[in-house]
Amino acid sequence: MTNGARALITTLVDSGVQVCFANPGTSEMHFVAALDEVPDMRGVLCLFEGVATGAADGYGRIAGKPAATLLHLGPGLSNGLANLHNARRAHTPVVNVIGDHATYHKKYDAPLESDIEPLTDWTHGWVRRTGGGAEVGRDTAEAVAAAQASPGRVASLILPADISWDDGAEAAAAVEPVPPSAPDAQVIEEIAEVLRGGAPTCLLLGGPATGLAGLSAADRIAAATGARTLVETFPARLTRGAGVPPVERLGYLAEQAGAQLAGIEHLIVVGTRAPVTFFAYPGKPSDLVPDGAVVHTLAGLETDVVAALEQLADLLAPGIAARPAPPVVPELPTGELTAQNWVDVIGALLPERAILSDESNTSGVLLPAATAGSPCHDVLALTGGAIGQGLPVAVGAAVAAPDRPVIALQADGSAAYTISALWTMARENLDVTTVLLNNNAYAILRLELARVGADGGGPKANDLLDLSRPEMDFAAIAEGFGVPATVATTCEELAEQFQHALAAPGPHLIDARI
Amino acid sequence: MTNGARALITTLVDSGVQVCFANPGTSEMHFVAALDEVPDMRGVLCLFEGVATGAADGYGRIAGKPAATLLHLGPGLSNGLANLHNARRAHTPVVNVIGDHATYHKKYDAPLESDIEPLTDWTHGWVRRTGGGAEVGRDTAEAVAAAQASPGRVASLILPADISWDDGAEAAAAVEPVPPSAPDAQVIEEIAEVLRGGAPTCLLLGGPATGLAGLSAADRIAAATGARTLVETFPARLTRGAGVPPVERLGYLAEQAGAQLAGIEHLIVVGTRAPVTFFAYPGKPSDLVPDGAVVHTLAGLETDVVAALEQLADLLAPGIAARPAPPVVPELPTGELTAQNWVDVIGALLPERAILSDESNTSGVLLPAATAGSPCHDVLALTGGAIGQGLPVAVGAAVAAPDRPVIALQADGSAAYTISALWTMARENLDVTTVLLNNNAYAILRLELARVGADGGGPKANDLLDLSRPEMDFAAIAEGFGVPATVATTCEELAEQFQHALAAPGPHLIDARI
Repeated sequence: MTNGARALITTLVDSGVQVCFANPGTSEMHFVAALDEVPDMRGVLCLFEGVATGAADGYGRIAGKPAATLLHLGPGLSNGLANLHNARRAHTPVVNVIGDHATYHKKYDAPLESDIEPLTDWTHGWVRRTGGGAEVGRDTAEAVAAAQASPGRVASLILPADISWDDGAEAAAAVEPVPPSAPDAQVIEEIAEVLRGGAPTCLLLGGPATGLAGLSAADRIAAATGARTLVETFPARLTRGAGVPPVERLGYLAEQAGAQLAGIEHLIVVGTRAPVTFFAYPGKPSDLVPDGAVVHTLAGLETDVVAALEQLADLLAPGIAARPAPPVVPELPTGELTAQNWVDVIGALLPERAILSDESNTSGVLLPAATAGSPCHDVLALTGGAIGQGLPVAVGAAVAAPDRPVIALQADGSAAYTISALWTMARENLDVTTVLLNNNAYAILRLELARVGADGGGPKANDLLDLSRPEMDFAAIAEGFGVPATVATTCEELAEQFQHALAAPGPHLIDARI
Repeated sequence: MTNGARALITTLVDSGVQVCFANPGTSEMHFVAALDEVPDMRGVLCLFEGVATGAADGYGRIAGKPAATLLHLGPGLSNGLANLHNARRAHTPVVNVIGDHATYHKKYDAPLESDIEPLTDWTHGWVRRTGGGAEVGRDTAEAVAAAQASPGRVASLILPADISWDDGAEAAAAVEPVPPSAPDAQVIEEIAEVLRGGAPTCLLLGGPATGLAGLSAADRIAAATGARTLVETFPARLTRGAGVPPVERLGYLAEQAGAQLAGIEHLIVVGTRAPVTFFAYPGKPSDLVPDGAVVHTLAGLETDVVAALEQLADLLAPGIAARPAPPVVPELPTGELTAQNWVDVIGALLPERAILSDESNTSGVLLPAATAGSPCHDVLALTGGAIGQGLPVAVGAAVAAPDRPVIALQADGSAAYTISALWTMARENLDVTTVLLNNNAYAILRLELARVGADGGGPKANDLLDLSRPEMDFAAIAEGFGVPATVATTCEELAEQFQHALAAPGPHLIDARI
């Protein structure tokens, strides 16, 4: 018998959860104290809950298993919601431990009191308020299992302070997560028939289908049938580069996506859904499926999507191999750094097995082409569109994979959301190289202002999209948070600083003035 | 006839709302474009929604009328929730305009799609999703009126993108907010009888009762009857200093509060509720009302609490004057800056009519005594306990009162939450002096770890409360966001830098190493 906090942490560790991204408060103090009694749990302090939840997202995408977060009551959870939204859209397994007031204290409506469940429900995951010491171990084990079901999800366990501190609790054994269901052979056969028909067809890949195995199977199908392949616009984790079959991502702009999907008669979705526009635009359709095209679902996220693709490939492409991208990298550019050429520096110098946390937004439009033949790497995209993901996800990825170089490609506007993630990088000495794409603007909104047809030439409107008054000195900010930083204004400087940052241990930031 | 965005902004302005703290996205582009057509609306860009909502809170506390916020869909709102929680607890009038996807786009569950209403409901305010151009003007006017009812509240208006961009809308005339109800003469007479009885009695003041008029009336009652007076622990806006009757705040720690309330037989609450502890502690009561004491409510927040106090004073203390604090300030201390002596520098140098945004937390324990006789000032406290309020509230207060010096007393741990507020101070050239109380720790949690009885001597536990690894260089961070900054390690340096910052226009930050 022990107290609730120790039972909870012990159960987490026994269930394979060994990292907790934490921003605790008074109601979590017994949890914090219990960390010293469970050696296998690592507490990683974050200065803001949005960093903690984003880090848990990044960790889960790379580790393939959940990290925990430790959040302080409703307001602490609220600060973490935006990155939980991204985790939800990425189907990342995450286990939130949300401290609450003691059960008997709730009724007093003390200043920090709020209803926590409407917020946890908002993440569309698994939610439970543990009811007592006898239940906390079981609830914890079930939370971890729920997070790891197929698809992965955000599991939130609410822990009242008195249940945390009261004795009489016991740790519980791990609960096996529900595995993905086996592919449906009849569906596979029907879709094979569609592909054999030879009509213009596209495979749209998402979720676990965007790893090496899924992409290879899809490419074999494409090689055998002439079908096109595309990856969803914002994949949770996309493996790409030399040795991996190259598959374009569906464009963010409806105009791009329309061109990519033009003429197809069958759209086969695998681990994703039929594509829609990110936003509505006056007079334009939201549905990106071409008129008349038929949508087929090979496998949803509750299914083993890689197995489904492999079985389909074995039917259609026996003996046909996937066509990996050759190792071809751009020449190192020279001269003034621009929004066009910075990507070639990254493409030329990207190290083996890099993880790219990509929140470069508009600045990253040319990145995929520049890195198509770079050494094999994983890209973690902005799945839910809630900006402020990039730096926290890089933190979590680096904790999950300390042997891999993590590169955060970070737009300036969104960097300001969760900038204190830099401090956690410094504190944990994480090998993260942040390339801060600094164009002094919410550039995407300048584009969108025109695209939505707003009459947006006015000075007040443009001022609200302008980040140059004052210019942010991200190198100074990074140094202030303990991360060594430099400024690059030429390609040569970016190349030299990028190579130095990769070679030296610990975090670095390069303020790339594009 | 105009589009929804223009109708909305015009109605805001016609209803007295002339400032909008904004962090827009694509779905808000027509609102942004419309700003140029309504000259009396000022858009203030914030780099994070928590800055926008905190600024609206600070604005409302000082201006006595709402500012608007402009937030991007559910995730944007979620980032602003913590400071809306503080605004809710402060009863500050705030009008959120929350952009949403076009009505016809919702069903596609695009990446940024989420249920907005569970989040707006969480603020316990007024919520409406406008249904079309014919309604947007009326809905806006009613939102402003709802925000300004008694007590003030957070009003949230959800604006779908197509309603924003479609023509066919019209602005509406302002709606009168429901005024506070008149005090109940019978209640006043009953409470007068209690006070005449001479038993130990305390008046606990909150809400509008903590301004000069309310404090003066309460002090007259105290002078006539011997009753004690106290202000709630975290007042939204407390007027104090020379010329104002001095009233202690109820202590944050239960031990303090218990001593302040010891022996009372009657507790009369005015514009607040019976006090409870901030958190639960093992084996200690949550209710701070002494056993056997009777709680009387003179006036709740729906009532004109100042009128109630004045009527009670006229009954009990005719001809008796309030006893204002004399203008006595501390001597300027010298030598090394410490957690004890920095408050005397502030007390000695506080200018006339200052506004103190106080999130100094543990570092500010001695502040009230040090500033008790400083020139009259307003203190804006951390009403809801959701940290990260201090800098944003200072932004809003400075926008509301450009002729008054605003001083942000800011603890280090909570500063990191919404640090980009500094950028908005620089952008708007706001006259805010931030004194950053830098003790490299979540000092309050060190205290709380012991107070909750957690066995907290372990290295991992203490590490999670330690902000010294690495130390944050807040001067560098501030300069990075465009705010001139200095470091003070002695009382003399703090005094000199504080005087310089007050004398020079625009924002300044002093990293006070205590």
